[in-house]
Amino acid sequence: MKDAKKERITISEILISDDFTGILDGIEDFSHILVLYWSHFASKGDRSIIKGHPMGRKDLPEVGIFATCSPVRPNPICVSAVPLLERKGNVVKVKGLDAIDGSPVIDIKPYVPSYYAVNEAKVSNWVRQIEREFAEALKGKEWHH
Amino acid sequence: MKDAKKERITISEILISDDFTGILDGIEDFSHILVLYWSHFASKGDRSIIKGHPMGRKDLPEVGIFATCSPVRPNPICVSAVPLLERKGNVVKVKGLDAIDGSPVIDIKPYVPSYYAVNEAKVSNWVRQIEREFAEALKGKEWHH
Repeated sequence: MKDAKKERITISEILISDDFTGILDGIEDFSHILVLYWSHFASKGDRSIIKGHPMGRKDLPEVGIFATCSPVRPNPICVSAVPLLERKGNVVKVKGLDAIDGSPVIDIKPYVPSYYAVNEAKVSNWVRQIEREFAEALKGKEWHH
Repeated sequence: MKDAKKERITISEILISDDFTGILDGIEDFSHILVLYWSHFASKGDRSIIKGHPMGRKDLPEVGIFATCSPVRPNPICVSAVPLLERKGNVVKVKGLDAIDGSPVIDIKPYVPSYYAVNEAKVSNWVRQIEREFAEALKGKEWHH
């Protein structure tokens, strides 16, 4: 639901406060993690928005905020499943996190496929449309290289 | 990482406040949703726990809380990917949510496999052990029926 190109290349470092030293121990045994972060640019007013067009695109149907992945929502918490590249002390390096630099990370969980991976899940038509567009955009990019 | 049997049969209703009427519009086009809820039984002291044995089992290695799915964590937010059975107005009915009755739901998101489903993710040895035990327990149950 984001910029497919940017998402693939971004490397992010998540820094854990010294108060929590040790809280990452064992995370390196997982290839992927779930990162929960606070979309700190959502203002108080933004948080009362009920409906909107996905990604602000007027050509897509207006839906309730809980039917979108918008970072602007009553509790502006974003969830990303990302590959864990490295863990060194209180720092984890991940790939493809779409957080804005400086977003407070509020939780990290190990990614367990039996719990989080639902392949057969059906999505709305507008999500399918966005996914087709992303696939096309990536195909276009490959032609350039 | 929970009671495999209970998890499969629980049907939960999530009630959205009247202040947010309309926020679920369009969610019915998705077969699954991500539910974020607050583990409200975690005390303030619990939230400063750094390490622990997964599921309180001393036979499993002690690891950092961020390497576990424990509901007791600095920000006690749990994330579940569950089938959406029905949506009627401000109520959604889901299957297999492992929340304790009364847990405040803080966010609902549509489940998009291209974003959340990572099948090739590798997990720790202790997760594999728990999964083997669950599989055995379910097999045992099938014999009884």
